[in-house]
Parts: sequence; C-alpha cells; structure tokens
Amino acid sequence: MPSTARIVALDVLDVRFPTSEHLDGSDAMNPEPDYSAAYVRLCTDAGDGHEGHALAFTTGRGNDVQANAIAALAPYVVGRTVTDICDDLGGFARTLVHDPQLRWLGPEKGAMHMATGAVVNAAWDLAAKRAGLPVWRFLGEMSPEELVAQVDFRWLSDALTPEEAVDILRRAEPGRRDRIDLLLAGGYPAYTTSPGWLGYTDEKLARLAREAVTDGFSQIKLKVGASVEDDVRRMTAAREAVGAGVRIAVDANQRWDVQQAIDWMRELAPYDPYWIEEPTSPDDILGHATIRRALRPIKVATGEHVANRVVFKQLLQAGAVDIVQIDSTRVGGINENIAILLLAAKFGVPVCPHAGGVGLCEMVQHLAMFDYVAVSGTMHNRVIEYVDHLHEHFIDPVRIRHGRYVAPTLPGLSAQMHPASLEEYAYPTGPVWASRV
Amino acid sequence: MPSTARIVALDVLDVRFPTSEHLDGSDAMNPEPDYSAAYVRLCTDAGDGHEGHALAFTTGRGNDVQANAIAALAPYVVGRTVTDICDDLGGFARTLVHDPQLRWLGPEKGAMHMATGAVVNAAWDLAAKRAGLPVWRFLGEMSPEELVAQVDFRWLSDALTPEEAVDILRRAEPGRRDRIDLLLAGGYPAYTTSPGWLGYTDEKLARLAREAVTDGFSQIKLKVGASVEDDVRRMTAAREAVGAGVRIAVDANQRWDVQQAIDWMRELAPYDPYWIEEPTSPDDILGHATIRRALRPIKVATGEHVANRVVFKQLLQAGAVDIVQIDSTRVGGINENIAILLLAAKFGVPVCPHAGGVGLCEMVQHLAMFDYVAVSGTMHNRVIEYVDHLHEHFIDPVRIRHGRYVAPTLPGLSAQMHPASLEEYAYPTGPVWASRV
Repeated sequence: MPSTARIVALDVLDVRFPTSEHLDGSDAMNPEPDYSAAYVRLCTDAGDGHEGHALAFTTGRGNDVQANAIAALAPYVVGRTVTDICDDLGGFARTLVHDPQLRWLGPEKGAMHMATGAVVNAAWDLAAKRAGLPVWRFLGEMSPEELVAQVDFRWLSDALTPEEAVDILRRAEPGRRDRIDLLLAGGYPAYTTSPGWLGYTDEKLARLAREAVTDGFSQIKLKVGASVEDDVRRMTAAREAVGAGVRIAVDANQRWDVQQAIDWMRELAPYDPYWIEEPTSPDDILGHATIRRALRPIKVATGEHVANRVVFKQLLQAGAVDIVQIDSTRVGGINENIAILLLAAKFGVPVCPHAGGVGLCEMVQHLAMFDYVAVSGTMHNRVIEYVDHLHEHFIDPVRIRHGRYVAPTLPGLSAQMHPASLEEYAYPTGPVWASRV
Repeated sequence: MPSTARIVALDVLDVRFPTSEHLDGSDAMNPEPDYSAAYVRLCTDAGDGHEGHALAFTTGRGNDVQANAIAALAPYVVGRTVTDICDDLGGFARTLVHDPQLRWLGPEKGAMHMATGAVVNAAWDLAAKRAGLPVWRFLGEMSPEELVAQVDFRWLSDALTPEEAVDILRRAEPGRRDRIDLLLAGGYPAYTTSPGWLGYTDEKLARLAREAVTDGFSQIKLKVGASVEDDVRRMTAAREAVGAGVRIAVDANQRWDVQQAIDWMRELAPYDPYWIEEPTSPDDILGHATIRRALRPIKVATGEHVANRVVFKQLLQAGAVDIVQIDSTRVGGINENIAILLLAAKFGVPVCPHAGGVGLCEMVQHLAMFDYVAVSGTMHNRVIEYVDHLHEHFIDPVRIRHGRYVAPTLPGLSAQMHPASLEEYAYPTGPVWASRV
C-alpha cells in the first residue's frame, strides 16, 4: 500500500431497529427502546478494499444527535494519511479527545465523547484489518510499551502511572501465547440477559431461564427496579427455574436513590442475587460505595453509563464496585478502555463487560479477550454479557457455544454490518421505517 | 391570554464570535476559543409579543452539534400549551431530562443535557416575561413549596430531602423583601477575570489589574497552568499591581493531575492565591478532596464543567470544595441549578457563579440574586464572575457599578440578543463569518 493513501470519507448512517414492538430490552429506565446505531464508516483510497467500521449505540430518539456529533469529527479525519492514523492510534485518539473547542461539549462525556469513541473504534477496525488480525489479537501482539502508548494518562497518575501500567503488562507477558490458544480452543465465558427483560411474563422468564441453563450458561440476569413485589416474584420464579448452582445477577438500570437501593436489595437478598448492577446514578461514586458496604456480600457492578476513565478511577479508589462493566461505545474508544482495563487490573477488580444493544457483544468481546491475553491474564469470575438480539445484521456475528463466546478470527472489530441491513433499517427512509414513521 | 395558546416554534441559531483573534478568553486548556451560542427561541401564538430566549454556551467548533441537540428537543415542546409549560416548569424539565431514549446520550451530561438546559431556560425566560418579572424576582416570589416542586430529587435523597429543602427555604423567608430592596439599591458583588487571560502580556495584565481595583473590584482572577515559571512571574506582577488587600483567585482550567496541582500551587502559595479553580478533571471528586486537604487554607473551587447535581452532591459530601461555581448553561437549566443552590446551602458552602463566555453573566446573575433572596440569604464571601466581553449583543446587558452587578429589572432571563447580532454573527453565513471561513 502506498504510504500516501488517505482517508477520503467519513460516512455516518442513522440505523434503528424497532425493538420496542416486542419489549426486548425493556428495563426500569428504558421501557421501550428502539436499539439503534450511529454507524460510522472510514473509506480510504488505498485500493486494498479495507474500510473502518464502528458504531455508537443508542436507544432510539437522539440517534440523529449522535450521528451528527460523529459527522462533526470528519474534518479531523478526512485527508489524513492512513498510516498517520493507524500507526499512532494513541495520538489519533488524543487529537480528538483534547480538541480545545470540542471538549467544551463534555469534557469527555456524553454525545461528543461517544462520537469520539465511535471514530476511534472505526480507526482500530481499519488498522486491525490492515494487519489481518481480529482486534483482540492485534492488541495481544503489541508490546507493553506499545500498549501504554495507546493510553491517555491525563488525570490518572494518582491511581496509575505509565510505569505501573508497563509493569502490569510485563507480568502478563509470559503466558500470552498459551492464553491465545486457550481462547481459540474454548472461548470466553458468557452470561445471558435474554430471559430477564422487565416486559416479559413470569412464564416466559422461567422458560428462557431454563433454556439458558440447558444452553450452558452458568449466570443469568434479571432486570429489576419497577416494583419490589414484582421483583420478589420474578426472582423466585427465576431461582426455581435455574436452581441454586446458577448465578442470578440483577440490574436496576439506575432506578434507585442510595437508601432505596439498599432497602430494595435487602428484599431480594434471600434469593441470593450475585450482583446488583447500576443500583443508582452512574455518576454517584460515593453512593455506590455506601451501597456496597451495606449489601455485602452481594456484589455491586456498574459501568455501562460511566462516562470516562476518571469516574472509573474513583469507583476503584473508593472501593465502590466489585465488578467493572466496560462498554464498547460509551467512552472514548478502545484507547480509553485499555486505560480502564489497566486500572481494574491495578485494583484487582474483575471486568465483566456490558453488551447487548446493537453490536455491543461483537465489539466488547475483543476487549475482554485482550484483557485475558495481556492484562489481567485470567478469566476467573469474569463473564461477558450476552443478549441474543440483532446479531444477524453483522458480517462477523458473535457465536456462543456452551455458554461461551467463540473467539473471533476474522480481521477487525466485528462491528461491520451487512449493506442490506444498513439500507433496510436506515432511519427514517429505509423500508422498515418508511411504513412505520 | 387565551389558555389555549401554544408553543408554535423552537428555533435554533448557531452564533459565533471570533474572539480567538485577540486571545480574549485564552487559558491553559482553551488557547483560542471562539465564544459561541447555540441560541434557542420559543415562539407562541399567544399574541402577547412574548418569546422565550436562552442559549447554550460553547467555545466554537461543536456549536453546530450543540445546536442540533437543541433542535432534537423541538418535538417535546412545539404544540404544547404555554400554560402547560409555564405553570409547571418542574414537570416540563423532568419530561426532557427523563425521556427514556434521549437520556441514553448522557445520562444528564454533555451536549444533550446542555441542550435540555437551554430549552428549559428559554421556558423560564418566557414564564418570567409573562409574569412581568426578571427571573431572580420571579423565583423570589415563589413559596418554598413551589420552589421545591421545581427540583428533581432523584439521586439526591442521601444528601437532601424535599423536606429539608423546604426547611432551608422557610428559614430564609422572613427577610426576602429586605434583601430584594438591598439588591435593587446596591447590587451583588462581582470579581473580574478580564485582566488574567493567559494570552495577555504581563504589562497588559498589570494595567488591567490596576484598572480593576480602581473600578471597585475587590477580587480578580488569573489563568494559570501552562508554565509554573510564567505563573509565578504573572502572580508576582498581579500582586504588585493590586496590593495585599485584593483577593487574587487562580484558575487552571483542569490542566493538572492531582499531585501536580498540589506541587504547582505550593509554588504560587507565597503570593496568597485566594482560590484555585478547576485544578483537575471536573469529574474527579476524590481528587479535589485530596487537593483541598493538601492546600489548606487555599480554597478549592469548581463547577463550570460539573455535569449535574449528582456530581455537585458528592463534591459537597466529600468535602472536596470550598466554593461551588454554578454555570447557567452546563446543567439541565434553572431547575437543576435550584437543586445545586439548595445542596450548597445544606452544606454551608458559598456559591460563586462561573460567568463570562457569551451571555453567562447575563443569565447567572439571576441565580446568584435568587440565592441571596430566598436560599442562602447572604452575600458573605460570595461573588459573581464578571468578564467584560460581548455584552453589547444583549438587549438587557449586565451593568457593573463599583465592582458590583446592578440587579436587572427587565422581565425575563436577560439572555435575549439583538436581532442584528444574531444575524451578523450567524455561523457560517453571517457577514462576520462569510469573510473569514
């Protein structure tokens, strides 16, 4: 490839799925989501057929705002050489995150930061495709020093220095090759949220929970938080369905105030919930710490709405969480997620990624597998969320075998959708929406 | 006015001022801002001539993203009756903040939350104009119960309950009328940042600092954080210019890591800085607490980039700040700022609003004066920031007399700009930009 090849286009598509029609994805804060993707595609003139694809996930309304925020980054990308970006993804991410004018819209949070994450992830997809590797292996081939160069340490040094990060990565270096082989042979453990949506009947919940166990999952998750009576009844049904040996996590999707979370969870405690996820505001570090102290040994988990590495840093410093739930499209892309994986390793807290939505399983599996290969070096007490929705729209969909993610082998980030899906679900002009809007 | 009058339009304008050409507003994180407004106008068919005007402030690039986020709220506003909105501004704000799909883009942070704030503030402007009162007096006429109904207590109850909020407001009720008279007679204390921009020469800094003292200001502020040697030199020049009796605050605009903030400020301590503002990430509650403990008696201030009431709650719970700096366009509008004023009152921490930019002085003065009238009941150790830029574009510009804000008397929020300014600085088509872009 000529080194003068350039990014010639950053295309953004508004793609939405009418998931609200079946209450898939319904929870205490998101009663009727239409799972959506603000989809980004980087095109080059390299002539090698490679494009960079990624997306920011939203739940419907506002997907146009998200798409517009991504489009605003085009001047920072179009016209740059492919090697300029792909050979220094850390520098590329920093130019987007620290633009002195755009950062006012955050800083490093909300729609603008998610837009940065989508563009950064598309660049990683392109870089990994050029290298002929799935992203988890592309990352797993980097030296500790190369990985640390991906990370923006601004605001982290009171918890993690570059030197400490190199040490963490060096300690995990010896077993990398074995762990890659283990992943290729046996995959990475998953848990399933598919039985537990709030809009499902008890019967459907129990049936799906039993099926999950049959399918090999050793953990399921229920949405809670709308009615404590309903939650007790649903938790009872779920526990009866799966027996004592299967972990049941519960997820309140931020519904509660601090004391309310404690009181509510005490009602559910007899049914042995494994973790309580998003008990309150994702910004409430001190609140999570209080909840965790009160509810021990029930674990506290959060992260899918945690805006950036600075909030994760404090959740760890304050002893506020037992589980760090990274998300592939909330923060500023893979670079910031590497920082969060390193922070979690430093504090010895397991990372169990959030997924579901559109393409979140596809993307985040790469981060969990990279964590196993090169950061934490272990799968102990680690699981990736799995939801069985919308995978058919992806060229390289996740595959689950015996309750585990099969390690992807195609080059890239697995976020690329079929052209037909992009067309059919385009909002509001695609055929699926033309008849509805 | 017929009670069937409706909101018939929500117009959004992208207005930018080329302030970067003179380095007005330059600081360690914002070297060349073009102060900008994503401007919103609510029009009704009431036939009474009243419109609701407000804006979200940005620093240039990204103002289009902000404007687009505001436009996405039009379906939540257009078609509703004027009384439906103006008679229940608390309910109106909650419908925008808690939309189950839009909230995914935050929740309650970044571009989407600022958009909510702009629209909510425009509704307050409309409501106050209909009542024939400036917003600070419109608020000051409300009963404690009416004020508490404006507040969204979600995620606050571990620090402040509605009952406590009513108590705070009841305690301040007796003196309201006297305090209104005192404000009308003598205004509210200001401090000025105009001398201290990072792009100014030492000579300009010293000259402007002396002028500030002559003009009656008893506090000025310097931008710091780019070079410790420069800061020591500039601080020396400023202290020499103003003497020992004038407070000099310094502002690092988030430039430092935690330990760096402590080390840097120890170099400046001999020159008696009054407060250090934004020493580090606005999300870093624990970091601010560490810095405050290390630097006592230098005060720690932050707030202009604090995303929402939940982060302010924790800054107060953690004893992380001596000064709460509310901003009129960062959070979800006047309703959320009422919550923050109540939290600050509960914890006994003074509120010294952030201002400057475009229209921030005009809007935030109403909140500080309302705080004095009905919440804290005191001006002790409280000052509103003042920057002498861009006021000429406003129909009801702030007026400073002897270093104090003159209490505004025209109805509304004072955010309405002259039609000619909106036209001239429209981006990118207005005459000011057509010759530049």
